[in-house]
Amino acid sequence: MRFDVEVRVMPRATLLDPQGQAVEHALQALGFERVSGVRVGRALTLQLERADAGRAEADARAMCQRLLANPVTEDFTLSVRATS
Amino acid sequence: MRFDVEVRVMPRATLLDPQGQAVEHALQALGFERVSGVRVGRALTLQLERADAGRAEADARAMCQRLLANPVTEDFTLSVRATS
Repeated sequence: MRFDVEVRVMPRATLLDPQGQAVEHALQALGFERVSGVRVGRALTLQLERADAGRAEADARAMCQRLLANPVTEDFTLSVRATS
Repeated sequence: MRFDVEVRVMPRATLLDPQGQAVEHALQALGFERVSGVRVGRALTLQLERADAGRAEADARAMCQRLLANPVTEDFTLSVRATS
């Protein structure tokens, strides 16, 4: 079976995010007011060929833990769906 | 009202994504087989204070068009929800 995987990797809530602060200031400079808490992370999409959804999700999680996210500074969320 | 905004900015499907290709090769080098179509983009989260959901979504879209996404090379998707 073929699966679409979406991964979001964000800086941990307790850590400073200088890139997010820069974007927040830029938005305010453009006139967007009452904007707060801007955080910038990475979004990844990929396709996986696996026997079933459980295996696809387990492998996607392993990819995040081993390569896609930094376990010390980042959190990730996963979405795995069979390709329509 | 307060809204949580999630933005995903991805390279257009028709464009090469060298960063995605590098990640795909790295995943294969780590032993993850049958992985394809890796694309790497940005994920942003922010909070907005707006009168209603329509206004929040319109402003979030304007932020993407004016700053957060490159209209020539990137597509964005938006999610706007009232803060629980």
